[in-house]
Amino acid sequence: MTIRIFVTGGTFDKEYNELNGTLYFQDTHLPEMLKLGRSRLKVQIRTLMMVDSLEMTESDHKIIVDNCKKCPEDKIIITHGTDTMVETAAFIAKEITNKTIILTGALVPYKFGSSDGLFNLGSSLAFVQNLPYGVYISMNGRVFHSNNVRKNKQLGEFEEINHTGHE
Amino acid sequence: MTIRIFVTGGTFDKEYNELNGTLYFQDTHLPEMLKLGRSRLKVQIRTLMMVDSLEMTESDHKIIVDNCKKCPEDKIIITHGTDTMVETAAFIAKEITNKTIILTGALVPYKFGSSDGLFNLGSSLAFVQNLPYGVYISMNGRVFHSNNVRKNKQLGEFEEINHTGHE
Amino acid sequence: MTIRIFVTGGTFDKEYNELNGTLYFQDTHLPEMLKLGRSRLKVQIRTLMMVDSLEMTESDHKIIVDNCKKCPEDKIIITHGTDTMVETAAFIAKEITNKTIILTGALVPYKFGSSDGLFNLGSSLAFVQNLPYGVYISMNGRVFHSNNVRKNKQLGEFEEINHTGHE
Amino acid sequence: MTIRIFVTGGTFDKEYNELNGTLYFQDTHLPEMLKLGRSRLKVQIRTLMMVDSLEMTESDHKIIVDNCKKCPEDKIIITHGTDTMVETAAFIAKEITNKTIILTGALVPYKFGSSDGLFNLGSSLAFVQNLPYGVYISMNGRVFHSNNVRKNKQLGEFEEINHTGHE
Repeated sequence: MTIRIFVTGGTFDKEYNELNGTLYFQDTHLPEMLKLGRSRLKVQIRTLMMVDSLEMTESDHKIIVDNCKKCPEDKIIITHGTDTMVETAAFIAKEITNKTIILTGALVPYKFGSSDGLFNLGSSLAFVQNLPYGVYISMNGRVFHSNNVRKNKQLGEFEEINHTGHE
Repeated sequence: MTIRIFVTGGTFDKEYNELNGTLYFQDTHLPEMLKLGRSRLKVQIRTLMMVDSLEMTESDHKIIVDNCKKCPEDKIIITHGTDTMVETAAFIAKEITNKTIILTGALVPYKFGSSDGLFNLGSSLAFVQNLPYGVYISMNGRVFHSNNVRKNKQLGEFEEINHTGHE
Repeated sequence: MTIRIFVTGGTFDKEYNELNGTLYFQDTHLPEMLKLGRSRLKVQIRTLMMVDSLEMTESDHKIIVDNCKKCPEDKIIITHGTDTMVETAAFIAKEITNKTIILTGALVPYKFGSSDGLFNLGSSLAFVQNLPYGVYISMNGRVFHSNNVRKNKQLGEFEEINHTGHE
Repeated sequence: MTIRIFVTGGTFDKEYNELNGTLYFQDTHLPEMLKLGRSRLKVQIRTLMMVDSLEMTESDHKIIVDNCKKCPEDKIIITHGTDTMVETAAFIAKEITNKTIILTGALVPYKFGSSDGLFNLGSSLAFVQNLPYGVYISMNGRVFHSNNVRKNKQLGEFEEINHTGHE
């Protein structure tokens, strides 16, 4: 079994430019993170784009879907900015039904020391091995179906849409 | 759903004593690690012991089994040293069949900067949510049934017992 | 001997806001950094302001000078953003001649993992103990008189004004 | 001006062997640490040995002295384990009087995340630039003459021999 990882950017991979104090993208840290986690899973990593998810376009969405469709693997992880992760997941879910696809990300860049990225990567790689076909978001140790998740921007966490419905 | 976490020590929680240059145990880092991972899972953490797994006794095994049995949760993670993790998993598997129990650990202490602990914690918390009742080991991004796993001490990784059987 | 440390903000103390992905100031990390360095120097730390040095006003300069003048210590370190560190040093040098004052900072925030802050703090605390009265900038392991230093923004390092004069 | 750095091992450069859980030496981290500190000082680094200072022999002391004597630089930093740093400094002081030599080290290995090594390196590089010829120890942000320093093993810090004499 090989797991496919598609990199699209997001906070996960942001870096600090020490010459001008801004955040920017360079290369993905996925290989380094998998090494740090002593992962022994077979993975294929491909960087599709390196963008802030607020700047992701429909064209980017199509590139993601195309790559998910054409790769031979049926277990796919997509690293993605958290701001529009829900929208991208919904877009993919409309197009692909015969693969297990998990979107994940981080609230703090991996390079910044207190990142949730490594934890989320560990969770996502576990979820993708055991969940049935479908599109999911894995954040905060949890996993959500793409049709029942939203980002709570006040708390900086993901939750079910009907989160408070039982109250 | 609440996940129970039992802490038994192991490399996971080792610290460096700067006064004499030795490794030792103080408190567990689990709460700090869950915070770092921005985990929003409901967990109950209890430290059962703080030992190097090479020093774990049958009495310790019984304490672990007793606690797994009597806690109300049926999803349990046990942090454990890697050297005898397989033996402890086998011991538990003989005693408990109606819970999902995952043993995990780390090759490098969490406090030492290049630890696989956070990654393994992320994986374990994911696996425990979706796997059927049974006793498992989760290391290296993978999950193994307690009856088909060994530690490869040369490589520092876990693998199936019949790993090379197909050759 | 007590060393006075005045905190003014700068990259040194910047943090990452995980809710909106921007950089901001919270508290200074100086006490934590001194603890990490196992410093046994007697220091008095006071936060004067928490600003990006590009936003520092003449009013801020006056606050800094006033505090340097009125504190009883004659060995003073000022943490400061690197962009206008040279200007602030020149301003202080015109006003104070009977103390050893060292401005220092960092190119990467302390919280971001690959910071030069701890190294610069170590250097500054050493320089301030042994240099004669005057205003200096300590960065990159070096120390510069306030009247012979500039920031090379292309390289992100400090150098003598007459750096290339000998060529 | 070029500063010579001699590496002899010590806690500074210890690493964690994840296969057997012991501490050991591999390569020195000095170049990496200087890069992290964005040091722009001209340095020449040479590893003389990689030993725990408790295992340092008279033969090792002679190698250190010989190298200090024959190198062209008169500003020298020696990284050294803290347990016998005082003895080595005294040995060197008897042999060399026409150079500024600073011994430094760390209480926690650089690779372990909470190390004082980077701070001490920053201090030592500053002290070596401005102190007169002599042999010194720089730890805890302070600098001590080789004839007036001891390690307080209870506190894990260095202090003057006559530290409590005034009480």
